[in-house]
Amino acid sequence: MIDSVIVLSGGMDSAVLLAHVLTQGKTVEAISFDYGSKHNVRELPMAAGLCKTFGISHQIIRLPFINDLFSSSLLSSGEAIPDGSYREANMKSTVVPFRNGIMLSIAAGYAESIESPEVLLGSHSGDHHIYPDCRPEFNRAFAEAVDLGTDGQVKIRFPFSNMDKRDIGDLGRTLGLDFSKTWTCYKGETHHCGTCGACDERKYALRYDQGRDVTTYLA
Amino acid sequence: MIDSVIVLSGGMDSAVLLAHVLTQGKTVEAISFDYGSKHNVRELPMAAGLCKTFGISHQIIRLPFINDLFSSSLLSSGEAIPDGSYREANMKSTVVPFRNGIMLSIAAGYAESIESPEVLLGSHSGDHHIYPDCRPEFNRAFAEAVDLGTDGQVKIRFPFSNMDKRDIGDLGRTLGLDFSKTWTCYKGETHHCGTCGACDERKYALRYDQGRDVTTYLA
Repeated sequence: MIDSVIVLSGGMDSAVLLAHVLTQGKTVEAISFDYGSKHNVRELPMAAGLCKTFGISHQIIRLPFINDLFSSSLLSSGEAIPDGSYREANMKSTVVPFRNGIMLSIAAGYAESIESPEVLLGSHSGDHHIYPDCRPEFNRAFAEAVDLGTDGQVKIRFPFSNMDKRDIGDLGRTLGLDFSKTWTCYKGETHHCGTCGACDERKYALRYDQGRDVTTYLA
Repeated sequence: MIDSVIVLSGGMDSAVLLAHVLTQGKTVEAISFDYGSKHNVRELPMAAGLCKTFGISHQIIRLPFINDLFSSSLLSSGEAIPDGSYREANMKSTVVPFRNGIMLSIAAGYAESIESPEVLLGSHSGDHHIYPDCRPEFNRAFAEAVDLGTDGQVKIRFPFSNMDKRDIGDLGRTLGLDFSKTWTCYKGETHHCGTCGACDERKYALRYDQGRDVTTYLA
């Protein structure tokens, strides 16, 4: 039996979470989603590489209808990614409507199918400024819905919900995670742009100002 | 603006719900899901036909990963559909893990994207014996999660949650719905089998015993 299904984006938070739960001795399968974001093309190979490195099974679920039908600047079909910090109003355009709900629902159904009792998501306390489906109250309500909708067979857990992104960076460093094998930038170009909200947070988390961030940024 | 996004399976419950909300003067878009069930091949053309008849927009979302990765006798990849009533333990094999959660999550994200404030699902009081993601307590918890996860922009509603399937059949007859343009049977053969749990319920709802059911059954 697999102890946990982890939602793995290829970003730093879920990568640290994966390293963390493997350290705890859990058996884990990873599930990733190709929903047509500009950075899926960079993130998903990172997710696949992490699974190969850690020797765990990995499913990539394709959700092309999101790019076709949904509205968000994060998507290939959307407008340009704005620059600036997460707190600024213009970053709201990067919200993919109910994305975490969709990913968690699919992960819950998959976990029930393989009789795994737990789904893990690496959302954290810094995520909830503009993303309603990252906030603690959403997490609680959704976890309850999954508990009821799977007859108690699957629990959704957010182990980093009370941690700051920098705490996660520090934990990953302690665990020996190579952050160059993770991707954060929303723009999905050849290197991290260094100016979008996601890069801004990554720099904070990986202590860029202290010269400790191994990422190559364009700016 | 579209008043409501309706999850339309092509079965009788969602067909009646569609006819009902159109009678109320609402503008509606329909969303259907091809998740690889044995009866999708019969249901989805019914859903498309209903949308054409009623002159509304229709999206069919393909979710091939469910058939590939999930466990259920309802799926093409699963074992044979058992015969018998919904209450019997063997019908449990027809549960598709967290299917309603997945469909509702996608419908919620789609509704937010097109700025529609409401998603409608035709689940009813008779549904919850074996399907945990049809029960009232799941519905309540999931609706709360969607409310929180969309910043209050989308409400999930279950207008038939307190109705019995026969009430729905009677309402559809009052509305003049042609039930021969709906599909229920889980087996997805050329005609309704008449012996699976879904056919059993359809016969009850459409008053087969009273000679009022227009469906052609194999048995």
